[in-house]
Amino acid sequence: MTTLAASRQFDHAAKIVNFDQETICPPKGMADQGEVLAMLENQSFRLTKEPQFTAAVEALYQEKEDLDPLDRALIKHLHRDYSKSKNITPDKNLEFQKIYNQGFVDWINAKKHADFSLFEKSLAKVRDANLEDLSLREYDGEKPKTKYDALFDDYEEGMTEQDLDAAFGAFAERMTPMLREIKTHGKKIRTDFLTREVTDVQQQEMADYLLHLLKFDFERGAWTTTEHPFTDNIGKDDARVTTHYYPTNFLSSMFSIIHECGHALFMQLQPAEDYDHDINDLQTMGMHESVSRFYENRIGRSRAFISLIYPKCCEIFPQVFTDVSEEEFYEAVNVVEPSLVRTEADEFTYTFHIIIRYELEKRIVNGELEVDSELPDKWNTLYEKYLGVTPANDREGILQDVHWASGFGYFPTYAIGNMYNAMYYNRMAQDLNIEETIRAGRFDIINSWMAEHVFKEANRLAPKDWIRQVTGRDFTPEDFLAYLEKKYSALYEI
Amino acid sequence: MTTLAASRQFDHAAKIVNFDQETICPPKGMADQGEVLAMLENQSFRLTKEPQFTAAVEALYQEKEDLDPLDRALIKHLHRDYSKSKNITPDKNLEFQKIYNQGFVDWINAKKHADFSLFEKSLAKVRDANLEDLSLREYDGEKPKTKYDALFDDYEEGMTEQDLDAAFGAFAERMTPMLREIKTHGKKIRTDFLTREVTDVQQQEMADYLLHLLKFDFERGAWTTTEHPFTDNIGKDDARVTTHYYPTNFLSSMFSIIHECGHALFMQLQPAEDYDHDINDLQTMGMHESVSRFYENRIGRSRAFISLIYPKCCEIFPQVFTDVSEEEFYEAVNVVEPSLVRTEADEFTYTFHIIIRYELEKRIVNGELEVDSELPDKWNTLYEKYLGVTPANDREGILQDVHWASGFGYFPTYAIGNMYNAMYYNRMAQDLNIEETIRAGRFDIINSWMAEHVFKEANRLAPKDWIRQVTGRDFTPEDFLAYLEKKYSALYEI
Repeated sequence: MTTLAASRQFDHAAKIVNFDQETICPPKGMADQGEVLAMLENQSFRLTKEPQFTAAVEALYQEKEDLDPLDRALIKHLHRDYSKSKNITPDKNLEFQKIYNQGFVDWINAKKHADFSLFEKSLAKVRDANLEDLSLREYDGEKPKTKYDALFDDYEEGMTEQDLDAAFGAFAERMTPMLREIKTHGKKIRTDFLTREVTDVQQQEMADYLLHLLKFDFERGAWTTTEHPFTDNIGKDDARVTTHYYPTNFLSSMFSIIHECGHALFMQLQPAEDYDHDINDLQTMGMHESVSRFYENRIGRSRAFISLIYPKCCEIFPQVFTDVSEEEFYEAVNVVEPSLVRTEADEFTYTFHIIIRYELEKRIVNGELEVDSELPDKWNTLYEKYLGVTPANDREGILQDVHWASGFGYFPTYAIGNMYNAMYYNRMAQDLNIEETIRAGRFDIINSWMAEHVFKEANRLAPKDWIRQVTGRDFTPEDFLAYLEKKYSALYEI
Repeated sequence: MTTLAASRQFDHAAKIVNFDQETICPPKGMADQGEVLAMLENQSFRLTKEPQFTAAVEALYQEKEDLDPLDRALIKHLHRDYSKSKNITPDKNLEFQKIYNQGFVDWINAKKHADFSLFEKSLAKVRDANLEDLSLREYDGEKPKTKYDALFDDYEEGMTEQDLDAAFGAFAERMTPMLREIKTHGKKIRTDFLTREVTDVQQQEMADYLLHLLKFDFERGAWTTTEHPFTDNIGKDDARVTTHYYPTNFLSSMFSIIHECGHALFMQLQPAEDYDHDINDLQTMGMHESVSRFYENRIGRSRAFISLIYPKCCEIFPQVFTDVSEEEFYEAVNVVEPSLVRTEADEFTYTFHIIIRYELEKRIVNGELEVDSELPDKWNTLYEKYLGVTPANDREGILQDVHWASGFGYFPTYAIGNMYNAMYYNRMAQDLNIEETIRAGRFDIINSWMAEHVFKEANRLAPKDWIRQVTGRDFTPEDFLAYLEKKYSALYEI
C-alpha cells in the first residue's frame, strides 16, 4: 500500500471519530476521544512527512508537465501542502491539533453557558497556533503580502485580501442603501406562520422528502441530526449530511438540509476518477459553498421550487399551512430581516454577517486586534453598524459559530460562494430553462449540468481559473449584486 | 506513551468505526470502512507484538507475585493473550480480521435476502479462521481437552464442555417436562395487547424513561437505535447502548434497553482504578451477560418492577393499556411461548435457544459437523425437538444472529449468565429486601450492591473464582432451575 493510501486510511478513521464527536459522543467521553482524534491525525501527518514520500513528491513535481492531468493536479497539491508544512514537526503538528480539539471542547462549553470568557484563552491559543503555523512556512514563488492572505490562501488558493476588499466593498456600497430602502419603504411580508409549532417527526419527514427530491444517493450517503448542520465526505461512497430541528422554525431544517445536500451532491457527482487519483477533495471551500448555496438559494428559494414543494409542505405541516397561499410562502422564505445569527440569516443580509467576521478575523490575524474580553463588544458593534441589531448574550453573538475554534480564514468562502454561483447560474441559463426544469422536479437534469460544468474541473483548477473555465469570464461580484437587486426590488416593490 | 496506551488508542478508534458501521454507515460505504477497521485493529495488534513489549510482559509475568493485585491481573491477562497469539503474524491477523469483517457484510446481505447460501462460504471461512487460530496456539499449562474447550476458554476462562454439558443437561432434564406441562395444563395468559401498534416516538420516550429510572449515567454514556441492540464500552467515560423499535412489539425495545443498560451499568460502575490499570474489560462474557440478564429478568420481569412502571406504561402507551390491569401486564411479560427468535424469547425458553446453538457449534468446531447447505435444516430440526417450532425461512432461522459472522463459542455465555445471576440474587437477598427496594425505585441501592459485590472483582478473577467470591459457593445451575420452577409453577398454576 502506498504511503498516500495509508495516510488516507488514517484520515478516513479520523473523519469517523470526528463525526462521532459531533453526533453521539457523551460529554465526559469527549476528552479521551479528542486524544484519539489527534493521534489519528498525527499518524496521517507523519506518513506524509516520511523522507521517501516527500522526496518522491519533490521529484515528481520537477517532472509535473510530463504527468497526466489528474496526477499533475495531485502532485501540485501535495507539493503545495508539503511546502507549507515542511518545517512543521510531527510533535508540533500534534500540539496544533490538540489546541484545535481543545478549542472545540471549550467552545461547546462556553456556548452552553453563553460566556465568551470560557473560550477566550482557547481562542487566543488558536490564533497563536495559526500564526506559528504561518511563521514556519516556506514559499516556492511569491510570498503572500499579508498574514491574512497566507491564511486565506489555504481555503481559496490565489484569492487575496485585495479581492475580498473589492468584492465586499462593492457589496456594502450597493446593498447598504438597498437594505435601508427595504426596511423603510418595502412591502410588508407576512411571516407569522413561520413560527408555528411543528414536531421533530414532521421535520424528519420533510428532510427525507427534500433529499429524495434533489436526488441525494442514499446508497452512498447517510444523514442524521447535530447541533450545527454539516456535510462530511467520509469516503468515496459515503457522503453524510446533518440538520437540526427547531420546534418553532421549520424553515431552518428545510433549508439547512437543502444546503448540505448541495455539498453532498458535489461529492457524489464529481468524476469517479478523481477519487481513484486521490484528488477528490481538492475543491476549495468557496467552490463548495457556491454549490451548497446554489441549491439552497438559487434553487431552494426560487419561485419555481416553492411552487413544486408547496403541496408537500401542506401535507406534512398541515397545522402551519392551513391559511397560507403559495405566494405567501414564497415571500416568507425570502423575507429580508436583519438578524443576529448567521446560519438563520436570509439570502440578502447573509453577506453582511460574513463581512463582520472578515473584518474581525483579518485584523486579528494581521495583528491589529487583540483576542481579549473586549472582542464580544467589537462583534456587537459591527452588528449594530451593518445590520442594526445587537446580541443579548455571547451565545447569540460571538459564540454562535464553531469555526474559529479550529482557526481563522474560513468565513469569506461562504460569501465568495454566492458570487461564484451567480456567475454559473447565468451560464446555466444559456443551456437550460432553469425555472421550468425546477417546476418539473427534474433535478437529474440540473445535477447532470452541474456535474458536467461545475464539478468536473473543480479538483483540478484554482478558483480563478475554474470560474473562468465554467463561465468564460473572470471572477466578479457583479452577477450576484444584479441578481439581488432584481429579485428583492421586485419582491419588496421598491 | 506506553505501547499499551498506544494500542488502546487504536482500539478506541476501531470501536468508534465499528459503532459507526452499526449505526449510520451507508450500504456502499461499508466496504471501505471495513478496510479502515481492519487497518486499525492490525495497528493495535502490531504494537502488542513488538519484541520490547512482549519481552516486558514475559519478564513481569515471571515476577507476577511481587506485583500489586491490579497490575498482576493485567500481566496475567496480557501473558495469556500473548501465549495464545504469539505465533500469529500481523499479516495472518489482518487476514483473520478481513474474514470476520467480510462475514459481517455477507451476513447482513444474506439475512436481508433470507438466504443462507449467501453466507455459507463466509461462515466456512470463519470456522477455518477459528480453527487455524487454535492450531497456532501454545499453552503454558495443560492443553484444553477439545477444540471447543480451547475456543470457549476465550470467552469464559476455565469453563469447559464438561461444565456446559452438565449445566445444560440438568436444564433440559428438568425444564423439558415442565415446558410440556405449561403448554398442556398451564393457565391461559392474555397477550392480545402486546401486539397493539405503538410509534417510534412513544418507544423512544419509554427507553429514555427506563434508562433514567435505572440510573444510567448520561454524562458518561449515550444511546441510539440499531438493527441488533448492543452495548459498547468505547472508553472509560463512554458506554453506549442501542435498541430497536418494532411497531407491533413494544416489549421488545423495553426489555432490550433494560438488558443493554445492565451491561452499561457494569461498565460505568466498575472500580475507577480498573480503568487506570487497563484491566477494565477483563470481565468474561458470562459475567457480563449475568448482569444484563439480572437487570432484564430478575429486576425487569419481577412483580415489583412491573408494579413500579405500570403507571408510566399507561401514560406513554395509552392505546395499549386502555383495558390492561397491572396483573395482566405482569403475566404477559412473563408468558412462556416457544418461539423462533432468540432475542425475543421468554426467560423460560431462552436457554433452549442457547442449547441448540451450543449443540451445533460444538460439533462444527470439533469437526463433527460440516458448514454446508444442510446446516439450516439441522438448525430447524433442533428447534422442532426442543421447542416444537420450525422457522419458515433462514432469516428467522439460522441467520437471525450476527455472532457466528465473527466466530464460534460465544453463545453459551448467555445461558451461563442466567445461572450466575440466580446465585448472586440469592446472596443479595441476604442483605436487601430486593422486592421492596425495586418497588421504591431505589436502583441506586441495587446498583451500589452490584458495584460492591458483583462488579468489584470481576476484572481480577476467573469466573469460577469470582462466583465463589461473590456468593461463597461453587458454580451450580441449581439456583436458576429452582427460581424458574418456583416462579413459573406459580404463574401457570401447575
